[in-house]
Amino acid sequence: MNLILLFDPDFITPNRVRLSGRRQVHIQDILKAKLGQSLTVGKVNGLMGKGTLVCEGSDAVELDVVLDQKPPRPIALTLILALPRPPMLKRILFSAAMLGVKKMIILNFNRVEKSLWNSSSLRPDAIAEQLVLGLEQSKDTVMPEIIIKKGFKPFVEDELPGLIKGTQALVAHPEIRGQRPILNSEHVDQNRALSPNLASGPITLIIGPEGGIIDYEIAQLRSAGCQLIDLGPRILRTEAVLPFVVGKLF
Amino acid sequence: MNLILLFDPDFITPNRVRLSGRRQVHIQDILKAKLGQSLTVGKVNGLMGKGTLVCEGSDAVELDVVLDQKPPRPIALTLILALPRPPMLKRILFSAAMLGVKKMIILNFNRVEKSLWNSSSLRPDAIAEQLVLGLEQSKDTVMPEIIIKKGFKPFVEDELPGLIKGTQALVAHPEIRGQRPILNSEHVDQNRALSPNLASGPITLIIGPEGGIIDYEIAQLRSAGCQLIDLGPRILRTEAVLPFVVGKLF
Repeated sequence: MNLILLFDPDFITPNRVRLSGRRQVHIQDILKAKLGQSLTVGKVNGLMGKGTLVCEGSDAVELDVVLDQKPPRPIALTLILALPRPPMLKRILFSAAMLGVKKMIILNFNRVEKSLWNSSSLRPDAIAEQLVLGLEQSKDTVMPEIIIKKGFKPFVEDELPGLIKGTQALVAHPEIRGQRPILNSEHVDQNRALSPNLASGPITLIIGPEGGIIDYEIAQLRSAGCQLIDLGPRILRTEAVLPFVVGKLF
Repeated sequence: MNLILLFDPDFITPNRVRLSGRRQVHIQDILKAKLGQSLTVGKVNGLMGKGTLVCEGSDAVELDVVLDQKPPRPIALTLILALPRPPMLKRILFSAAMLGVKKMIILNFNRVEKSLWNSSSLRPDAIAEQLVLGLEQSKDTVMPEIIIKKGFKPFVEDELPGLIKGTQALVAHPEIRGQRPILNSEHVDQNRALSPNLASGPITLIIGPEGGIIDYEIAQLRSAGCQLIDLGPRILRTEAVLPFVVGKLF
Protein backbone atom coordinates (compact mmCIF):
# COMPACT_ATOMS: atom_id res chain seq x y z
CA MET A 1 0.00 0.00 0.00
CA ASN A 2 1.94 3.01 -1.30
CA LEU A 3 -1.14 5.22 -1.09
CA ILE A 4 -4.06 5.03 1.34
CA LEU A 5 -7.23 5.29 -0.71
CA LEU A 6 -10.03 7.28 0.92
CA PHE A 7 -13.77 7.03 0.29
CA ASP A 8 -16.63 9.42 1.04
CA PRO A 9 -17.79 7.62 4.21
CA ASP A 10 -14.27 7.99 5.65
CA PHE A 11 -14.63 11.78 5.90
CA ILE A 12 -15.89 12.95 9.30
CA THR A 13 -15.16 16.59 8.38
CA PRO A 14 -14.11 17.96 4.96
CA ASN A 15 -10.43 17.60 5.95
CA ARG A 16 -10.43 14.72 8.42
CA VAL A 17 -10.86 11.00 7.87
CA ARG A 18 -11.38 8.18 10.32
CA LEU A 19 -10.07 4.81 9.22
CA SER A 20 -10.50 1.36 10.72
CA GLY A 21 -9.93 -2.19 9.56
CA ARG A 22 -7.38 -2.95 6.87
CA ARG A 23 -6.12 0.61 6.48
CA GLN A 24 -5.81 1.12 10.24
CA VAL A 25 -3.82 -2.09 10.53
CA HIS A 26 -1.59 -0.95 7.69
CA ILE A 27 -0.93 2.44 9.30
CA GLN A 28 -0.33 1.10 12.80
CA ASP A 29 1.23 -2.32 12.25
CA ILE A 30 2.98 -2.13 8.88
CA LEU A 31 3.98 1.52 8.63
CA LYS A 32 4.20 1.87 12.44
CA ALA A 33 3.26 5.50 11.91
CA LYS A 34 3.63 7.95 14.79
CA LEU A 35 1.35 10.87 15.66
CA GLY A 36 2.24 13.78 13.39
CA GLN A 37 3.61 11.54 10.66
CA SER A 38 2.61 12.34 7.11
CA LEU A 39 1.29 9.57 4.86
CA THR A 40 0.44 9.48 1.16
CA VAL A 41 -3.33 9.47 0.65
CA GLY A 42 -5.75 9.95 -2.20
CA LYS A 43 -9.50 10.28 -2.57
CA VAL A 44 -11.08 7.75 -4.87
CA ASN A 45 -11.61 9.32 -8.31
CA GLY A 46 -10.11 12.54 -6.92
CA LEU A 47 -6.93 14.25 -5.82
CA MET A 48 -3.96 12.80 -3.97
CA GLY A 49 -2.03 14.42 -1.15
CA LYS A 50 -0.88 13.95 2.40
CA GLY A 51 -2.62 12.73 5.53
CA THR A 52 -1.19 13.59 8.94
CA LEU A 53 -1.86 11.10 11.70
CA VAL A 54 -3.61 13.13 14.41
CA CYS A 55 -5.39 10.55 16.52
CA GLU A 56 -4.72 6.89 17.26
CA GLY A 57 -7.13 4.57 18.97
CA SER A 58 -7.60 0.85 19.26
CA ASP A 59 -10.58 0.83 16.90
CA ALA A 60 -9.67 3.64 14.48
CA VAL A 61 -7.11 6.23 13.47
CA GLU A 62 -7.74 9.76 12.24
CA LEU A 63 -5.83 11.72 9.63
CA ASP A 64 -5.96 15.39 8.65
CA VAL A 65 -5.74 15.40 4.90
CA VAL A 66 -4.59 17.93 2.31
CA LEU A 67 -5.46 16.84 -1.22
CA ASP A 68 -3.68 18.95 -3.81
CA GLN A 69 -2.09 16.66 -6.41
CA LYS A 70 -3.55 15.18 -9.55
CA PRO A 71 -3.32 11.41 -9.92
CA PRO A 72 -1.07 10.13 -12.72
CA ARG A 73 -2.49 10.29 -16.22
CA PRO A 74 -4.46 7.24 -17.35
CA ILE A 75 -2.87 5.22 -20.11
CA ALA A 76 -4.82 5.29 -23.35
CA LEU A 77 -5.53 1.57 -23.35
CA THR A 78 -8.88 -0.19 -23.28
CA LEU A 79 -8.51 -3.85 -22.39
CA ILE A 80 -10.87 -6.54 -23.64
CA LEU A 81 -10.17 -9.76 -21.81
CA ALA A 82 -11.52 -13.28 -22.17
CA LEU A 83 -12.76 -14.30 -18.73
CA PRO A 84 -9.88 -16.21 -17.11
CA ARG A 85 -9.92 -18.53 -14.11
CA PRO A 86 -10.54 -16.75 -10.78
CA PRO A 87 -6.93 -16.53 -9.50
CA MET A 88 -5.80 -15.07 -12.80
CA LEU A 89 -8.80 -12.73 -12.98
CA LYS A 90 -7.83 -11.35 -9.58
CA ARG A 91 -4.23 -10.79 -10.65
CA ILE A 92 -5.23 -9.16 -13.93
CA LEU A 93 -7.71 -6.81 -12.27
CA PHE A 94 -5.00 -5.81 -9.80
CA SER A 95 -2.48 -5.45 -12.59
CA ALA A 96 -4.76 -3.41 -14.86
CA ALA A 97 -5.53 -0.98 -12.04
CA MET A 98 -1.83 -0.79 -11.12
CA LEU A 99 -0.75 -0.10 -14.70
CA GLY A 100 -3.22 2.74 -15.25
CA VAL A 101 -5.81 0.99 -17.43
CA LYS A 102 -9.16 2.74 -16.90
CA LYS A 103 -11.55 0.66 -18.98
CA MET A 104 -11.73 -3.09 -19.18
CA ILE A 105 -14.30 -5.37 -20.74
CA ILE A 106 -14.52 -8.97 -19.59
CA LEU A 107 -15.88 -10.96 -22.53
CA ASN A 108 -17.01 -14.47 -23.24
CA PHE A 109 -15.20 -16.52 -25.88
CA ASN A 110 -15.87 -20.03 -27.14
CA ARG A 111 -13.00 -21.45 -25.09
CA VAL A 112 -14.00 -19.80 -21.82
CA GLU A 113 -15.34 -22.53 -19.54
CA LYS A 114 -18.99 -21.75 -18.95
CA SER A 115 -18.74 -22.49 -15.23
CA LEU A 116 -16.35 -19.56 -14.79
CA TRP A 117 -19.28 -17.18 -15.22
CA ASN A 118 -20.63 -18.33 -11.86
CA SER A 119 -17.43 -17.44 -10.03
CA SER A 120 -17.72 -15.22 -6.98
CA SER A 121 -14.64 -13.37 -8.24
CA LEU A 122 -16.96 -11.63 -10.74
CA ARG A 123 -19.06 -10.08 -7.96
CA PRO A 124 -18.79 -6.27 -7.92
CA ASP A 125 -17.27 -6.24 -4.42
CA ALA A 126 -14.66 -8.85 -5.38
CA ILE A 127 -13.74 -6.87 -8.48
CA ALA A 128 -13.57 -3.59 -6.57
CA GLU A 129 -11.29 -5.16 -3.95
CA GLN A 130 -8.63 -5.98 -6.53
CA LEU A 131 -8.94 -2.58 -8.21
CA VAL A 132 -8.47 -0.79 -4.89
CA LEU A 133 -5.39 -2.90 -4.13
CA GLY A 134 -3.96 -2.06 -7.56
CA LEU A 135 -4.51 1.69 -7.11
CA GLU A 136 -3.00 1.57 -3.62
CA GLN A 137 0.06 -0.19 -5.04
CA SER A 138 0.67 2.22 -7.90
CA LYS A 139 -0.43 5.48 -6.20
CA ASP A 140 -3.44 6.33 -8.28
CA THR A 141 -7.02 7.20 -7.34
CA VAL A 142 -9.08 6.69 -10.48
CA MET A 143 -11.07 3.47 -10.38
CA PRO A 144 -11.15 1.58 -13.67
CA GLU A 145 -14.53 0.87 -15.20
CA ILE A 146 -15.13 -2.87 -15.56
CA ILE A 147 -17.83 -4.05 -17.96
CA ILE A 148 -18.97 -7.66 -18.18
CA LYS A 149 -20.24 -9.03 -21.49
CA LYS A 150 -21.42 -12.61 -21.61
CA GLY A 151 -22.35 -12.58 -25.29
CA PHE A 152 -19.42 -12.55 -27.71
CA LYS A 153 -21.39 -12.16 -30.93
CA PRO A 154 -23.71 -9.29 -29.97
CA PHE A 155 -20.81 -7.44 -28.33
CA VAL A 156 -18.47 -7.81 -31.30
CA GLU A 157 -21.13 -7.04 -33.88
CA ASP A 158 -23.03 -4.25 -32.18
CA GLU A 159 -20.66 -2.57 -29.71
CA LEU A 160 -17.06 -3.26 -30.67
CA PRO A 161 -16.94 -1.18 -33.88
CA GLY A 162 -18.04 1.91 -31.95
CA LEU A 163 -15.78 1.17 -29.01
CA ILE A 164 -12.62 0.89 -31.08
CA LYS A 165 -13.35 3.92 -33.22
CA GLY A 166 -10.32 6.23 -33.06
CA THR A 167 -8.14 3.56 -31.49
CA GLN A 168 -5.87 0.87 -32.87
CA ALA A 169 -7.57 -2.40 -31.99
CA LEU A 170 -5.10 -5.23 -31.54
CA VAL A 171 -5.78 -8.91 -30.87
CA ALA A 172 -3.02 -10.75 -29.00
CA HIS A 173 -3.22 -14.27 -27.80
CA PRO A 174 -0.81 -17.07 -27.09
CA GLU A 175 -0.09 -19.87 -29.48
CA ILE A 176 -1.18 -23.00 -27.73
CA ARG A 177 -1.22 -26.76 -28.20
CA GLY A 178 0.46 -26.73 -31.56
CA GLN A 179 -1.90 -24.26 -33.21
CA ARG A 180 -0.41 -21.60 -35.41
CA PRO A 181 0.00 -18.33 -33.58
CA ILE A 182 -2.06 -15.47 -34.83
CA LEU A 183 0.32 -13.42 -36.88
CA ASN A 184 -0.16 -10.05 -38.37
CA SER A 185 1.93 -10.24 -41.48
CA GLU A 186 1.98 -6.44 -41.66
CA HIS A 187 3.83 -6.21 -38.34
CA VAL A 188 5.77 -9.40 -37.84
CA ASP A 189 9.32 -9.04 -36.64
CA GLN A 190 10.34 -11.94 -34.47
CA ASN A 191 12.42 -9.76 -32.17
CA ARG A 192 10.43 -6.56 -32.05
CA ALA A 193 6.97 -7.87 -32.62
CA LEU A 194 5.08 -4.68 -32.00
CA SER A 195 6.64 -1.76 -33.76
CA PRO A 196 6.88 1.24 -31.40
CA ASN A 197 5.04 3.53 -33.80
CA LEU A 198 1.88 1.58 -33.07
CA ALA A 199 1.61 3.58 -29.87
CA SER A 200 0.99 6.94 -31.44
CA GLY A 201 -2.62 6.94 -30.28
CA PRO A 202 -5.11 5.11 -28.09
CA ILE A 203 -5.09 1.33 -28.19
CA THR A 204 -7.75 -1.31 -27.66
CA LEU A 205 -6.08 -4.59 -26.73
CA ILE A 206 -7.95 -7.88 -26.92
CA ILE A 207 -6.50 -10.83 -24.98
CA GLY A 208 -8.15 -14.16 -25.75
CA PRO A 209 -8.56 -17.21 -23.52
CA GLU A 210 -5.63 -19.49 -22.66
CA GLY A 211 -7.09 -22.16 -24.95
CA GLY A 212 -6.95 -19.80 -27.92
CA ILE A 213 -9.39 -17.85 -30.05
CA ILE A 214 -11.29 -19.95 -32.57
CA ASP A 215 -11.29 -19.11 -36.26
CA TYR A 216 -14.88 -17.89 -36.25
CA GLU A 217 -14.10 -15.41 -33.48
CA ILE A 218 -10.97 -14.24 -35.28
CA ALA A 219 -13.02 -13.60 -38.39
CA GLN A 220 -15.60 -11.66 -36.39
CA LEU A 221 -12.94 -9.55 -34.66
CA ARG A 222 -11.28 -8.78 -37.98
CA SER A 223 -14.49 -7.75 -39.63
CA ALA A 224 -15.18 -5.46 -36.65
CA GLY A 225 -11.91 -3.68 -37.47
CA CYS A 226 -9.31 -5.42 -35.27
CA GLN A 227 -5.74 -6.22 -36.35
CA LEU A 228 -4.01 -9.40 -35.28
CA ILE A 229 -0.61 -9.06 -33.67
CA ASP A 230 2.15 -11.36 -32.60
CA LEU A 231 3.93 -10.65 -29.33
CA GLY A 232 7.13 -12.44 -30.28
CA PRO A 233 8.37 -16.02 -30.30
CA ARG A 234 7.56 -16.74 -26.66
CA ILE A 235 4.10 -17.56 -25.37
CA LEU A 236 3.42 -15.38 -22.35
CA ARG A 237 0.98 -16.23 -19.62
CA THR A 238 -2.05 -13.94 -19.67
CA GLU A 239 -1.05 -12.09 -16.51
CA ALA A 240 2.32 -11.15 -18.03
CA VAL A 241 0.88 -10.01 -21.36
CA LEU A 242 -0.60 -6.84 -19.87
CA PRO A 243 2.57 -5.35 -18.27
CA PHE A 244 4.55 -6.52 -21.32
CA VAL A 245 2.28 -4.71 -23.76
CA VAL A 246 1.94 -1.62 -21.57
CA GLY A 247 5.75 -1.50 -21.31
CA LYS A 248 6.01 -1.78 -25.06
CA LEU A 249 3.34 0.71 -26.04
CA PHE A 250 3.21 3.40 -23.35
CA MET B 1 2.51 -26.44 -20.87
CA ASN B 2 2.95 -25.35 -24.48
CA LEU B 3 6.11 -27.45 -24.85
CA ILE B 4 7.00 -30.71 -23.13
CA LEU B 5 10.54 -30.34 -21.82
CA LEU B 6 12.66 -33.48 -22.07
CA PHE B 7 15.70 -34.44 -19.99
CA ASP B 8 18.49 -36.98 -20.58
CA PRO B 9 17.00 -39.69 -18.35
CA ASP B 10 13.78 -39.55 -20.40
CA PHE B 11 15.52 -40.99 -23.48
CA ILE B 12 15.23 -44.77 -23.76
CA THR B 13 16.69 -44.67 -27.28
CA PRO B 14 18.20 -41.66 -29.09
CA ASN B 15 14.77 -40.88 -30.60
CA ARG B 16 12.33 -42.18 -28.05
CA VAL B 17 11.36 -40.86 -24.64
CA ARG B 18 9.32 -42.44 -21.89
CA LEU B 19 7.47 -39.99 -19.64
CA SER B 20 5.60 -40.51 -16.42
CA GLY B 21 4.25 -38.28 -13.66
CA ARG B 22 3.37 -34.68 -14.39
CA ARG B 23 4.11 -34.81 -18.12
CA GLN B 24 2.19 -38.05 -18.59
CA VAL B 25 -0.81 -36.56 -16.81
CA HIS B 26 -0.58 -33.49 -19.01
CA ILE B 27 -0.46 -35.54 -22.22
CA GLN B 28 -3.24 -37.94 -21.25
CA ASP B 29 -5.58 -35.86 -19.11
CA ILE B 30 -5.12 -32.27 -20.24
CA LEU B 31 -4.21 -32.64 -23.91
CA LYS B 32 -6.16 -35.93 -24.17
CA ALA B 33 -3.65 -36.89 -26.88
CA LYS B 34 -4.36 -39.92 -29.09
CA LEU B 35 -1.84 -42.42 -30.43
CA GLY B 36 -0.11 -40.90 -33.46
CA GLN B 37 -0.74 -37.35 -32.32
CA SER B 38 2.14 -34.90 -32.63
CA LEU B 39 3.11 -32.75 -29.64
CA THR B 40 5.58 -29.89 -29.24
CA VAL B 41 8.66 -31.04 -27.34
CA GLY B 42 12.14 -29.73 -26.63
CA LYS B 43 15.29 -31.08 -25.04
CA VAL B 44 16.57 -29.06 -22.12
CA ASN B 45 19.35 -26.75 -23.34
CA GLY B 46 18.90 -28.21 -26.81
CA LEU B 47 16.65 -28.29 -29.84
CA MET B 48 12.86 -28.23 -30.04
CA GLY B 49 10.68 -30.31 -32.32
CA LYS B 50 7.81 -32.76 -32.39
CA GLY B 51 7.04 -35.85 -30.37
CA THR B 52 4.61 -38.43 -31.72
CA LEU B 53 2.68 -40.41 -29.15
CA VAL B 54 3.49 -44.05 -29.92
CA CYS B 55 2.70 -45.91 -26.72
CA GLU B 56 0.27 -45.28 -23.89
CA GLY B 57 0.27 -47.11 -20.62
CA SER B 58 -1.11 -46.53 -17.17
CA ASP B 59 2.32 -45.76 -15.73
CA ALA B 60 4.04 -44.04 -18.68
CA VAL B 61 3.69 -42.80 -22.24
CA GLU B 62 6.27 -42.98 -25.00
CA LEU B 63 6.97 -40.47 -27.74
CA ASP B 64 9.12 -40.70 -30.87
CA VAL B 65 10.85 -37.37 -31.11
CA VAL B 66 12.34 -35.35 -33.95
CA LEU B 67 14.32 -32.37 -32.69
CA ASP B 68 15.17 -29.96 -35.48
CA GLN B 69 14.31 -26.42 -34.40
CA LYS B 70 16.37 -23.91 -32.48
CA PRO B 71 14.80 -22.45 -29.37
CA PRO B 72 13.97 -18.72 -29.47
CA ARG B 73 16.89 -16.37 -29.01
CA PRO B 74 17.64 -15.36 -25.42
CA ILE B 75 16.98 -11.75 -24.56
CA ALA B 76 20.13 -9.80 -23.73
CA LEU B 77 19.10 -9.06 -20.18
CA THR B 78 20.84 -10.04 -16.97
CA LEU B 79 18.55 -9.64 -13.99
CA ILE B 80 19.83 -8.82 -10.50
CA LEU B 81 17.02 -9.20 -8.03
CA ALA B 82 16.74 -8.49 -4.32
CA LEU B 83 15.52 -11.70 -2.70
CA PRO B 84 11.72 -11.35 -2.45
CA ARG B 85 9.24 -13.30 -0.33
CA PRO B 86 8.78 -16.93 -1.46
CA PRO B 87 5.51 -16.59 -3.43
CA MET B 88 6.94 -13.66 -5.36
CA LEU B 89 10.28 -15.42 -5.88
CA LYS B 90 8.43 -18.33 -7.45
CA ARG B 91 6.49 -16.05 -9.76
CA ILE B 92 9.58 -14.07 -10.78
CA LEU B 93 11.61 -17.22 -11.52
CA PHE B 94 8.74 -18.48 -13.66
CA SER B 95 8.40 -15.09 -15.33
CA ALA B 96 12.13 -14.66 -16.01
CA ALA B 97 12.31 -18.10 -17.63
CA MET B 98 9.14 -17.40 -19.63
CA LEU B 99 10.43 -14.03 -20.89
CA GLY B 100 13.77 -15.40 -22.10
CA VAL B 101 16.07 -14.13 -19.34
CA LYS B 102 19.08 -16.48 -19.16
CA LYS B 103 21.04 -15.12 -16.22
CA MET B 104 19.69 -13.98 -12.90
CA ILE B 105 21.45 -13.09 -9.68
CA ILE B 106 19.52 -13.18 -6.43
CA LEU B 107 21.17 -10.66 -4.13
CA ASN B 108 20.90 -9.55 -0.54
CA PHE B 109 19.99 -5.95 0.23
CA ASN B 110 19.67 -4.17 3.56
CA ARG B 111 15.87 -4.32 3.41
CA VAL B 112 15.66 -8.02 2.58
CA GLU B 113 14.37 -9.81 5.66
CA LYS B 114 17.15 -12.06 6.86
CA SER B 115 14.78 -14.98 7.51
CA LEU B 116 13.99 -15.16 3.78
CA TRP B 117 17.43 -16.67 3.18
CA ASN B 118 16.26 -19.83 4.96
CA SER B 119 13.30 -20.30 2.64
CA SER B 120 12.93 -23.68 0.96
CA SER B 121 12.02 -21.80 -2.22
CA LEU B 122 15.76 -21.11 -2.65
CA ARG B 123 16.62 -24.82 -2.84
CA PRO B 124 17.99 -25.81 -6.26
CA ASP B 125 15.09 -28.18 -6.94
CA ALA B 126 12.51 -25.54 -6.02
CA ILE B 127 14.21 -23.00 -8.29
CA ALA B 128 14.51 -25.51 -11.15
CA GLU B 129 10.81 -26.37 -10.87
CA GLN B 130 9.75 -22.78 -11.58
CA LEU B 131 12.26 -22.40 -14.41
CA VAL B 132 11.00 -25.57 -16.09
CA LEU B 133 7.40 -24.34 -15.80
CA GLY B 134 8.42 -21.01 -17.35
CA LEU B 135 10.18 -22.68 -20.30
CA GLU B 136 7.23 -25.02 -20.83
CA GLN B 137 4.90 -22.00 -20.89
CA SER B 138 6.91 -19.96 -23.39
CA LYS B 139 8.24 -22.79 -25.60
CA ASP B 140 11.92 -22.50 -24.87
CA THR B 141 14.51 -25.07 -23.78
CA VAL B 142 17.43 -23.07 -22.40
CA MET B 143 17.52 -23.12 -18.62
CA PRO B 144 18.44 -19.78 -17.04
CA GLU B 145 21.47 -19.69 -14.78
CA ILE B 146 20.52 -18.60 -11.26
CA ILE B 147 23.27 -17.33 -8.96
CA ILE B 148 22.70 -16.63 -5.28
CA LYS B 149 24.75 -13.92 -3.56
CA LYS B 150 24.20 -13.33 0.12
CA GLY B 151 26.77 -10.56 0.46
CA PHE B 152 25.79 -7.25 -1.12
CA LYS B 153 29.07 -5.40 -0.57
CA PRO B 154 31.54 -8.01 -1.85
CA PHE B 155 29.31 -8.71 -4.85
CA VAL B 156 28.88 -5.07 -5.80
CA GLU B 157 32.53 -4.17 -5.20
CA ASP B 158 34.28 -7.22 -6.63
CA GLU B 159 31.95 -8.81 -9.16
CA LEU B 160 29.42 -6.27 -10.43
CA PRO B 161 31.84 -4.03 -12.37
CA GLY B 162 33.01 -7.02 -14.42
CA LEU B 163 29.49 -8.39 -14.83
CA ILE B 164 28.04 -5.19 -16.25
CA LYS B 165 30.95 -4.48 -18.58
CA GLY B 166 29.58 -3.99 -22.08
CA THR B 167 26.01 -3.68 -20.82
CA GLN B 168 23.84 -0.80 -19.69
CA ALA B 169 23.31 -1.35 -15.99
CA LEU B 170 20.01 0.08 -14.78
CA VAL B 171 18.63 0.24 -11.25
CA ALA B 172 14.83 0.29 -11.01
CA HIS B 173 12.90 0.20 -7.81
CA PRO B 174 9.56 1.41 -6.59
CA GLU B 175 9.11 4.55 -4.60
CA ILE B 176 7.76 3.46 -1.28
CA ARG B 177 6.46 4.93 1.98
CA GLY B 178 6.90 8.52 0.97
CA GLN B 179 10.56 8.27 -0.07
CA ARG B 180 11.62 10.05 -3.21
CA PRO B 181 11.72 7.73 -6.18
CA ILE B 182 15.11 7.13 -7.68
CA LEU B 183 15.20 9.28 -10.72
CA ASN B 184 17.71 9.40 -13.47
CA SER B 185 17.66 13.01 -14.49
CA GLU B 186 19.30 12.09 -17.79
CA HIS B 187 16.32 9.95 -18.80
CA VAL B 188 13.28 11.27 -17.00
CA ASP B 189 10.15 11.61 -19.05
CA GLN B 190 7.05 11.03 -16.98
CA ASN B 191 5.22 9.32 -19.80
CA ARG B 192 8.00 7.45 -21.57
CA ALA B 193 10.32 6.85 -18.69
CA LEU B 194 12.79 4.61 -20.44
CA SER B 195 13.72 5.97 -23.82
CA PRO B 196 13.65 3.19 -26.42
CA ASN B 197 17.23 3.85 -27.54
CA LEU B 198 18.40 2.40 -24.24
CA ALA B 199 17.84 -1.01 -25.74
CA SER B 200 20.51 -0.85 -28.37
CA GLY B 201 22.65 -3.35 -26.49
CA PRO B 202 22.66 -5.78 -23.58
CA ILE B 203 21.09 -4.63 -20.33
CA THR B 204 21.72 -5.47 -16.71
CA LEU B 205 18.60 -4.66 -14.70
CA ILE B 206 18.71 -4.37 -10.92
CA ILE B 207 15.40 -4.62 -9.05
CA GLY B 208 15.64 -3.73 -5.37
CA PRO B 209 13.52 -4.98 -2.46
CA GLU B 210 9.92 -3.86 -1.94
CA GLY B 211 11.04 -1.76 1.03
CA GLY B 212 13.44 0.21 -1.18
CA ILE B 213 17.19 0.48 -1.69
CA ILE B 214 18.99 2.43 1.03
CA ASP B 215 21.21 5.40 0.18
CA TYR B 216 24.42 3.52 0.93
CA GLU B 217 23.48 0.78 -1.51
CA ILE B 218 22.53 3.32 -4.15
CA ALA B 219 25.92 4.97 -3.78
CA GLN B 220 27.66 1.61 -4.08
CA LEU B 221 25.68 0.66 -7.19
CA ARG B 222 26.41 4.03 -8.79
CA SER B 223 30.11 3.78 -8.12
CA ALA B 224 30.09 0.29 -9.65
CA GLY B 225 28.79 1.90 -12.86
CA CYS B 226 25.01 1.59 -12.60
CA GLN B 227 22.51 4.22 -13.74
CA LEU B 228 19.33 4.93 -11.85
CA ILE B 229 16.10 4.86 -13.82
CA ASP B 230 12.51 5.74 -13.21
CA LEU B 231 9.82 3.48 -14.61
CA GLY B 232 7.14 6.15 -14.71
CA PRO B 233 4.71 7.70 -12.26
CA ARG B 234 3.18 4.42 -11.11
CA ILE B 235 4.80 2.07 -8.61
CA LEU B 236 4.68 -1.43 -10.06
CA ARG B 237 4.80 -4.58 -8.01
CA THR B 238 8.08 -6.45 -8.46
CA GLU B 239 6.51 -9.27 -10.47
CA ALA B 240 5.12 -6.79 -13.02
CA VAL B 241 8.37 -4.84 -13.38
CA LEU B 242 10.07 -7.62 -15.31
CA PRO B 243 7.52 -8.09 -18.14
CA PHE B 244 7.06 -4.30 -18.23
CA VAL B 245 10.77 -3.65 -18.73
CA VAL B 246 11.21 -6.55 -21.15
CA GLY B 247 8.28 -5.20 -23.15
CA LYS B 248 9.84 -1.77 -23.16
CA LEU B 249 13.41 -2.75 -24.02
CA PHE B 250 13.27 -5.88 -26.15
